[in-house]
Amino acid sequence: MRSTQQLDRAEALRLLGTVSLGRIVFTHQALPAIRPTSHVVAGEDVLVRLDEGASRASLVATPGEPGIVLAYEADAIDPETHLGWSVVVVGYTELIADRDEAERLAALPDPWRNQPSAGVLRIRSELVTGFRLGP
Amino acid sequence: MRSTQQLDRAEALRLLGTVSLGRIVFTHQALPAIRPTSHVVAGEDVLVRLDEGASRASLVATPGEPGIVLAYEADAIDPETHLGWSVVVVGYTELIADRDEAERLAALPDPWRNQPSAGVLRIRSELVTGFRLGP
Repeated sequence: MRSTQQLDRAEALRLLGTVSLGRIVFTHQALPAIRPTSHVVAGEDVLVRLDEGASRASLVATPGEPGIVLAYEADAIDPETHLGWSVVVVGYTELIADRDEAERLAALPDPWRNQPSAGVLRIRSELVTGFRLGP
Repeated sequence: MRSTQQLDRAEALRLLGTVSLGRIVFTHQALPAIRPTSHVVAGEDVLVRLDEGASRASLVATPGEPGIVLAYEADAIDPETHLGWSVVVVGYTELIADRDEAERLAALPDPWRNQPSAGVLRIRSELVTGFRLGP
């Protein structure tokens, strides 16, 4: 028998910070879209690097203006036992163009794919949910 | 230097079939939503188990009627090197209520979480994309 434990906000954000890969979830050309990316957790925000490409326009509005709402998911789930955890953050996005902010984010992982970076996207963690599945 | 290789449809579906966990991406209460689930690949379709719960209503229409479009993602990415692959399937959903169909799907993995099953959802693989990131 397995146990499912809902995670509180603090624990969910802590777990999210223990991994560096997740998946950004958004709408692109009116279709649900998802792609893996790298992230860091800074305080209560999730920061991801944006690749150049078509999907950027769907993610962010004008720099400085509020962006759209999107979801970010990361998990660590054993492929055999299927035990582990999953965390989902939902919130407004913001494109970070400020130099000081960018320096503060120096710990951000290198771009994952070989694509030019199109900036850093901050996701405000308005809604944080997660669960842990134990034996 | 890393190499990014786009996957063709056949290779992407093949890789998807080599893992049993992925993430279903949909819209719930006008917000982007994602949750991990188990799947199998049957021909060109992706089959996932539905849990009872609020999100079911967002995923499927009336049984027999065409469902909404959603995305399904699975990947196998090394947490250290970040090398691996990711596959995304986008397509219409269909709730499978037919007994014969259900028997044909006997290979479907057990429900992942301890929640009553609410049926099997078939995702028609209309759009299949993926990439492999190598050294």
